[in-house]
Amino acid sequence: MEVIREPAAMRSWSRRHRMAGRSIALVPTMGFLHEGHLSLISQARSCADITVVSIYVNPGQFSPSEDLSTYPSDVPGDLLKLSHTAIVDAVFCPPNLYDYQQRNNHAAEPSSGTTTKANDGRAAMISCIEEASSVEDDDDGSGHETWIRVEKLEQGLCGKSRPVFFRGVATVVAKLFHIVEPDVAIFGKKDYQQWRIICRMVRDLDFAVKIIGSEIIREPDGLALSSRNVRLSPEEREKALSINRSLLRAKDAAQSGQINCEELKSSVVQMITEAGGRIDYAEIVDQESLKPMEKIKSPVVICVAAWFGNVRLIDNMEVVL
Amino acid sequence: MEVIREPAAMRSWSRRHRMAGRSIALVPTMGFLHEGHLSLISQARSCADITVVSIYVNPGQFSPSEDLSTYPSDVPGDLLKLSHTAIVDAVFCPPNLYDYQQRNNHAAEPSSGTTTKANDGRAAMISCIEEASSVEDDDDGSGHETWIRVEKLEQGLCGKSRPVFFRGVATVVAKLFHIVEPDVAIFGKKDYQQWRIICRMVRDLDFAVKIIGSEIIREPDGLALSSRNVRLSPEEREKALSINRSLLRAKDAAQSGQINCEELKSSVVQMITEAGGRIDYAEIVDQESLKPMEKIKSPVVICVAAWFGNVRLIDNMEVVL
Repeated sequence: MEVIREPAAMRSWSRRHRMAGRSIALVPTMGFLHEGHLSLISQARSCADITVVSIYVNPGQFSPSEDLSTYPSDVPGDLLKLSHTAIVDAVFCPPNLYDYQQRNNHAAEPSSGTTTKANDGRAAMISCIEEASSVEDDDDGSGHETWIRVEKLEQGLCGKSRPVFFRGVATVVAKLFHIVEPDVAIFGKKDYQQWRIICRMVRDLDFAVKIIGSEIIREPDGLALSSRNVRLSPEEREKALSINRSLLRAKDAAQSGQINCEELKSSVVQMITEAGGRIDYAEIVDQESLKPMEKIKSPVVICVAAWFGNVRLIDNMEVVL
Repeated sequence: MEVIREPAAMRSWSRRHRMAGRSIALVPTMGFLHEGHLSLISQARSCADITVVSIYVNPGQFSPSEDLSTYPSDVPGDLLKLSHTAIVDAVFCPPNLYDYQQRNNHAAEPSSGTTTKANDGRAAMISCIEEASSVEDDDDGSGHETWIRVEKLEQGLCGKSRPVFFRGVATVVAKLFHIVEPDVAIFGKKDYQQWRIICRMVRDLDFAVKIIGSEIIREPDGLALSSRNVRLSPEEREKALSINRSLLRAKDAAQSGQINCEELKSSVVQMITEAGGRIDYAEIVDQESLKPMEKIKSPVVICVAAWFGNVRLIDNMEVVL
């Protein structure tokens, strides 16, 4: 398993494999890998000759008030886990992908290129919001300023409380696609809106990448796997089980004939609130357009975001009647 | 010279050449080709093994009040000109690149793929603005909604009077890059802001495409070549010479020691206005950041947009002291 830090080295690596006729699957991650990620990687393995995992905590998708600085990270641990799987061919751990000056300097150093030194470059990261609001006079106009917007899909659900999140996600995924040049990329359906946004971006911008959505992986007790789960206290973790339970109950109700979305949402909100969670949103939306539904007609997905202590968790469940 | 209509066929064609070790240059155009385009094509030829010219009038960059419907077009004439140059390997003439339903249908037809029938699909075009403002109820949420913004560079100069122009340009260029997968792309420096925006987009999104800016080609009397020139009356055309003359005079003045940008701009505005032109803007900006300058210090470019009758012309001149 190769560990590659420099974008230019990553692209050369991919192109060597492509020229040899091998197809490439990419699993983009923010690291702190768990079984959910390993499931994505297994799926990648089954649909391409070569598997690349990227580990990059993307500052472009965090606003200054969010948890970039406390987002869990353990690159050495991640590399160990990945090397044990024996099915990953390369790990791409770039430094700051938005600092073009630094990247040019790196490229000029003869010692750079492929390296085994892992460093997620957290110190050099700044959020896109901080950058955008920097004092005009300090700005020589040479910074990153290109953002991809998927204008309708990014608006609802997580987009309401995280206004720069999806432009950051779409932009960094485009960057990774251009660097790794995969044939296939795997995204978890736990981040349902993210998955739909990437699918739409790929279609609208004619990317030559096939997107695969992978089912949610859960703990035996139903909690959806997330890197943020480690930040839950044992008590909060117990309360957080209400998310999955409320989704299962709503799905059962729908399949038993309750197709009024207001009623279904109320029962989800009630169950999570009673357990001690603070709801960010609970929505029932069309699976393709993510538009809120009044009654369940087309295939829908019930999406929830809720806080337990200072940890925000998301989960969802598809319902097809 | 092959004429290719379908995006999938175009990408396959490029990949065949790439697998054979050939490099590819792309010259994106909106057709109605003139000597300026042919100059871009010559330059493409000198920096790659294979030359692809795209002809596509991009509805995404016109607002409803602009001249999409009257933008000059002559695809058969363009193909004839290109075949005479004997240095173009393929012409990509796609139908509507934003109608994904239609494209899927095309791809499903066994007779489609590479074809010599040229059709610019004007009837199926709608501007991005019209699409965005369509009645919500008519919108099933499946339309194009992904746009690339180069947020600071797109604001000044032409961006002021054409608010959706550069997001449309950046987006269609990304689409063309993903379809044609060139190693190099050539842009004319007559569209100076466009060229800078594409350079920045390529850097910020890590496109594996080298961008080359090609010098402005002028008529013997100094008028910058443009597809829109055919819409000038002989009288308007004579008046329009004031643009290049005013730029030359300002450049001379700067090189003789006049570095006050207000003074220089005034002389440009005065000369064009006296000739009968209506100024949209006259600006002196830094060549990289496109920020307006008060005094000429760094390398600058003097940029002008002006109306003659109902034709809007742009021109510019780089000044390095």
